[in-house]
Amino acid sequence: MLPPEELINFIETEDNFLIATHINPDGDGIGSSIALSMSLQVLGKKTVLLCKDLVPGQYKFLPGNESFYTLEQLKAQETKFKDYKNLILVDCNDLDRISDSTPTLNYSSSAVIDHHASERPFGNIRWVVPDAAATGLMIYYLIKRLGIKLTYEMAVNLYAAIAVDTGNFRYENTTSSVLRVASDLIDAGARPYVIYRHLFEAWSEGRFNLFMQVLNTLEKKDKIAIVKVTRKMFEDTSTSAEDTEHFVEFLKIMADVDVSVLFREIDDTHYKISLRSKDDIDVAIVAEAFGGGGHKNAAGCRIKADFETAKKELIGKIKQIMLN
Amino acid sequence: MLPPEELINFIETEDNFLIATHINPDGDGIGSSIALSMSLQVLGKKTVLLCKDLVPGQYKFLPGNESFYTLEQLKAQETKFKDYKNLILVDCNDLDRISDSTPTLNYSSSAVIDHHASERPFGNIRWVVPDAAATGLMIYYLIKRLGIKLTYEMAVNLYAAIAVDTGNFRYENTTSSVLRVASDLIDAGARPYVIYRHLFEAWSEGRFNLFMQVLNTLEKKDKIAIVKVTRKMFEDTSTSAEDTEHFVEFLKIMADVDVSVLFREIDDTHYKISLRSKDDIDVAIVAEAFGGGGHKNAAGCRIKADFETAKKELIGKIKQIMLN
Repeated sequence: MLPPEELINFIETEDNFLIATHINPDGDGIGSSIALSMSLQVLGKKTVLLCKDLVPGQYKFLPGNESFYTLEQLKAQETKFKDYKNLILVDCNDLDRISDSTPTLNYSSSAVIDHHASERPFGNIRWVVPDAAATGLMIYYLIKRLGIKLTYEMAVNLYAAIAVDTGNFRYENTTSSVLRVASDLIDAGARPYVIYRHLFEAWSEGRFNLFMQVLNTLEKKDKIAIVKVTRKMFEDTSTSAEDTEHFVEFLKIMADVDVSVLFREIDDTHYKISLRSKDDIDVAIVAEAFGGGGHKNAAGCRIKADFETAKKELIGKIKQIMLN
Repeated sequence: MLPPEELINFIETEDNFLIATHINPDGDGIGSSIALSMSLQVLGKKTVLLCKDLVPGQYKFLPGNESFYTLEQLKAQETKFKDYKNLILVDCNDLDRISDSTPTLNYSSSAVIDHHASERPFGNIRWVVPDAAATGLMIYYLIKRLGIKLTYEMAVNLYAAIAVDTGNFRYENTTSSVLRVASDLIDAGARPYVIYRHLFEAWSEGRFNLFMQVLNTLEKKDKIAIVKVTRKMFEDTSTSAEDTEHFVEFLKIMADVDVSVLFREIDDTHYKISLRSKDDIDVAIVAEAFGGGGHKNAAGCRIKADFETAKKELIGKIKQIMLN
C-alpha cells in the first residue's frame, strides 16, 4: 500500500498542518491522527490536531491525546494558528464529517487520508483505500514511505487504531498484512494486552448492569436477535448511549443468530437502530430502506414509530434481505 | 524457536507415530496434533491421532478432526496398530494428562512437544517451551524446520490452535512472533473471521440463557467479581459444564474488576472454582492453597464446603494475594 507521490510532496514541501478527524471520534480516527502528527513533527513540521468533540475517556491512554484541540478552542486562538494553511482529514473524507455545521477553517490546500468509500470527493489530494482495514494501517505505510523510525508512542496509537477497526483482529478485514503490521508495532513497543484492556475491558459497573438489562430484553426469531435499550435503563444505571457500544455485536455470539438488532429508544415513537450481520447478509440495504446507511455487516437507521410497529417493519425488511 | 535436533532425527528416522493429546482437549491440543500428523504424512510417515475424549463439537470444523481415535477405539484395533511404537505427546507432557487411568499404550520411544511447564519429566525427547504462546506455534516452527510446505488444512488447524491459546490475540502471550506466524497462516489460507466465528461465536441459545442466569448472580466487592452456576441452571437451560467456558473471563470486562471467580456447584457442599486475574495478580497461588493449580492469570481448584463458607475462605485468600 503505497501513498501517492503528491501526498509525499505535500508533506515534504509544506511546513504547517491542521490534522482533523471526524465527529464522535473512534480509536482509528484518534490514533491515526496522533501518529501522523508525531511523524510530521519528526520531519520538523508544525501540526495541530483537531476534532469537534473531546477525546472520549477510553482513548485517554493514547500517548499524545492531550494535544487535540476542539474546533472552538482553535477558533479562540485564531491568531496563533493563522499560518496553518494545510488541512489533512484523517479517517474521513469530507468536511461535513468533521463538524455538524460548516466549520470555518482557514486552509488553502487540503489532503484526505481515509479508508471509507465516499460519494462526495473533497480535497486537493485524496488517498482513499476502502480495502484498508483501518486508516491506522495507511498511516503506518506512510510513515515507512517517509523513512521515519516508528517510536513507541506512534506504535501504541497505530496498534490501537488497527485493533479498534478490526475488532482486535476478529473481523473479516483482518488480513495477513494487518497482522504483519501489528507485529511490527509490537516490536516498536506496543503491548497487545495492555491496549486490549484499555479498549475492551474498561466497562463501568453501570455499563455492565445496563448490558444485563439489555440482554434480558432479548427476542429471537428466525435467526434475528433483537434487544432494546430504554431511557429508563440509562437512568437506572447512570449510563448513556455510548455505553451501548458492542452490545449489538455481542448477540452474534449465538450460532443461530445471523442478524442482530439494538433498538435505542429516543422517545416512545422514535428509535435509533443498530444492525449487525454475519457473512453475506447485507444490513446496509436494510438501513438504507429506512434512510440510514453503513457497511454490509454493520449499519444503522432511525424509525419514527412505536416499538412494536418499528420492530415489525424492520423485521419485514430484514427477512426480505435474508431471502436473497 | 528451533526444535531440538534429536526430535528432527526421531521424526526423520522412524516411520509410525502415535500422536496423543490431553484429556478435555482444547483447540491448541487438537489443532496442533492434526497439523503435526498431516506434516508427518507429507514425509511419508504413518500416524494415528489419539485422545481419550471425543473431539468437542466446537472443533469439528477443523479439517482432519475426524481422524482422531479414542484410547478405547485404539485398543479395540490393537492388531492393526501394533507397529506404531513411537509416541508423541502434544500440548501436554506426561502420560497422566492423556488419560485418567494409566493408559495401556504400547510404545518403545516417546517425545513430548508442549508449552506447559512441568514438574514430572516424561519422554525420551522433550521439547517444552513454556514461553511459547501455544503448542501450535511450536508445530509451525517444526514444520518450517522439516522443510514442509504449509497446506491450507495445516494452516487452519494451527491458526485455530494459536487463536484459542491467545484468546484471539488478546492475552499477554501475544507477541510479535505470534502475529507474524498467524499472518503466514493466513497467507496459507486460514481465514481469521471464519475461524473466530467457529471458536467464539458458536453459542447455543441454551448457553446464552445460562450466561444470563450466571451474570445475574454477580457479586462484586473490592475488585473481586464472583458468579455462580448451579445444577439447576444447567437443567433449566439444557447445558453442561463445558458451556461455562469464557464466562469467568467475561467479568474482567469491568475496569474495576481485578479478579473474577466462577463457582460451579458439584453438590451443596462441593464447588469447582475457576479464577481469572489481571496483570500481576497471581491466582495460581490462590488455587494452590486449596489443592488446585494453574497459571498466574488463570487457575482452578475445588472447595468442599457450603457456598457461603467456600466463598468466604476463597475471598480471604484472594485478598491476601492482592495485598502483595
